[in-house]
Parts: sequence; C-alpha cells; structure tokens
Amino acid sequence: MKHITQRELLDADKQYRTNLMNCLSGPRMAVLVGTTNGAGHTNLAIFNSTLHIGAHPPLVGLIFRPDSVDRHTLTNIRHTGQYTINAVGMHFYEQAHHTSARYPAEISEFDAAGLTPQYSNRMKAPYVGESTLRFGLTLREEVPIQSNGTWLVIGEVQEIWLKAVLLKDDGSLRLDQAGIVAAGGLDHYYGLAFLSALPYAKPKM
Amino acid sequence: MKHITQRELLDADKQYRTNLMNCLSGPRMAVLVGTTNGAGHTNLAIFNSTLHIGAHPPLVGLIFRPDSVDRHTLTNIRHTGQYTINAVGMHFYEQAHHTSARYPAEISEFDAAGLTPQYSNRMKAPYVGESTLRFGLTLREEVPIQSNGTWLVIGEVQEIWLKAVLLKDDGSLRLDQAGIVAAGGLDHYYGLAFLSALPYAKPKM
Repeated sequence: MKHITQRELLDADKQYRTNLMNCLSGPRMAVLVGTTNGAGHTNLAIFNSTLHIGAHPPLVGLIFRPDSVDRHTLTNIRHTGQYTINAVGMHFYEQAHHTSARYPAEISEFDAAGLTPQYSNRMKAPYVGESTLRFGLTLREEVPIQSNGTWLVIGEVQEIWLKAVLLKDDGSLRLDQAGIVAAGGLDHYYGLAFLSALPYAKPKM
Repeated sequence: MKHITQRELLDADKQYRTNLMNCLSGPRMAVLVGTTNGAGHTNLAIFNSTLHIGAHPPLVGLIFRPDSVDRHTLTNIRHTGQYTINAVGMHFYEQAHHTSARYPAEISEFDAAGLTPQYSNRMKAPYVGESTLRFGLTLREEVPIQSNGTWLVIGEVQEIWLKAVLLKDDGSLRLDQAGIVAAGGLDHYYGLAFLSALPYAKPKM
C-alpha cells in the first residue's frame, strides 16, 4: 500500500492535490443541471455532487463552489427558484463534459454542446432531452459550509421523468440499464456493471 | 418516458418512495466508516454519501441521518474526533453490506462481518484491512440541514492509504483498477467500467 501523509498532500502541486482530492470521494453520477435566467437564456452545467438528503419530503442536494463554472447555475437557481437534474448517459457524456468550458452567459451550453432542451409544463427550467433519468426541483434550502465557503443547495423534487426500463416494482432503479455514467474526479468517466441487489441485513445471532 | 409527479411520489407507499429517492441521486462509492468509542470498542458502518468538499484544505463530507444505523458512528466521531473512510471492494461488498444489520454497541461489526481492523500510528480509529483505498479524518465541521434534521459532517484528511496501481502521475485515481464498488440506493451494488479521461474543456469559438 502506498501512504500519503497530510504534509505530503499539502506540499504537492496544486493540480495534483486537486485531482487526488476530487477522486478520493469516489465515483458519483455525472449530471447536467439545467436552468434559465428568467429572460429566455438557458444554462447547462455538469456536476458530480448529487446527493440523497431525504425521501420524506423528497430532497436532493448539490454542492456549489463559489469560484467554479457553475456560477451562472447558482445565480439562475436563486433568481428563478427552479432547476433540473439530468443524468448523463454513455451516448452523450463527451457532449456533457463540454458544458464545463467557460462560455459567456449569452451562449447557451445546450447549443455549444449540441444537446436538446426539453420543457415540461411544471417547470420553467429546461431538461436535457437526451437524458434517460431527469427530475425537476424547487429550491428549498441553501446551507453554507464555513470551512471553505462552498454551499450545499437542497431542492425538493417536483416531478421525475425516466425511461421505464429503469424502474423496478419496489421503486428501486437499475441505474446500469439506461447507460448512466459515473464521474470520478474532474474528468474520469465510468459505466456501471450491475453486481447484485442484496437483502436487508439482519444480525447473525 | 415514464412520468412521476410529486403528488404520486407523496402518495406512494413509504418503502417505494424510500427506494426511489435513494436511487434517484445515482451511484456513489460504497464505503465503510471506522470508529472507536474511545474505550476499546470498534464500530463499522456502510455509507454511500461520501462527497468532495474541497482540496485546499483537504475536506471530505458525509451525510448522517439521526434515525439510521449509523448513530453509533456519529456518537463515536463526536467523542473521539476521528474516523476512517474505507472504499468497499468487489471482493468484500457482501460482508460490507452486512455491517448495516443492527448489532448492539458491544458487538463490533468487524467481527460480525468478518473484516480485519488495521491501525496506523496517526489514527485512533480502525481501518478496514481489506480496503484498497482508505483515508483517516479528523472532525472539522458539523453542518445541520434544517429541512429534515440530517447532518453534513465534514472531516479533514490526515493521511491516505491506497493500492499503488490506483494512483496516476497527475494525482488522479483509476477507481476501477482496484475493484471499487458503487452503491445506488440502499442495496444495489455496481462495479465500474472505465470509459475515458476527457481533456479540460475549452470553448469552441
């Protein structure tokens, strides 16, 4: 086993440390967050910080950094109170990654990346037509993280659109069956290979 | 595409809604969190809520629910200020899942699941010897989430142990190469299939 002390981590060059720390927390679903500025401009940004907050009420979290390319996204969410989360699929993950390029606010990342905005009558924010698992949220809570100035943004799920093959009778999703992609770190993408669904664990005693 | 409204979600039975909401935020690394109560008792609990908070300082987050089996873990972290995060591998994910059974505090999940505690001289909390990617943390910040009473617990990375094959020259990790497992929802486990590492995206203009 290789050992890296905190001292070595702090002394490493900035990009090395950024890569290692971004990868350390493991693979997470790559998603595109869709917003609008309320005046007809749409925005799309890639994240891999989606997180389960709770089922009752149905809450999902996302982490935002103040200095990152997602600044248009957070501004739009605060302005309109709405956003969509769209799982990235294997058939368009390279286009999805391209949304991380720093385009000016007047250019929509939908156009830049060649992705299709799609609307529902319940949400002002655009969905990504290519995505097989997508859901619309309203802003519920912004939680400031003192340690480094990031924000945990929590949304309440308003509706879910998904490819029917994903959904099992008990409400679970087979995330591999619609080509959903996980991202580890800033730029490593992975497909999913189903291992098993294990039964509820009970003490052996 | 299948459509599920918030009304339908709220009217669904509790287990269906729990499964769907836990799966909705996608696959995330399955990890075992190792702690001690400070009096010789060790504890091990499975999570899939590890999240990147920042690289400068090196911070990692975990979500805790007040009513879940991780209650011993959070009590121990508050008491000792230390914990370990151990990536779950394909060769022991069924044992790792078994730590979610509700054992009384005096029984260590290491024994119950047949996993090996391993110690480093920098950490009081035990590591999982079977894990190919593990790191030790000190408690840095507890962030309360008002919407549903959960906690975002943030730790500062003190050291990292990992199988050398995982680590690339630029600090990135090839998470697939050490059999790391992702969990989606409460009980669905997935292996990773590497797709590619994409270059830094620049505007096409």
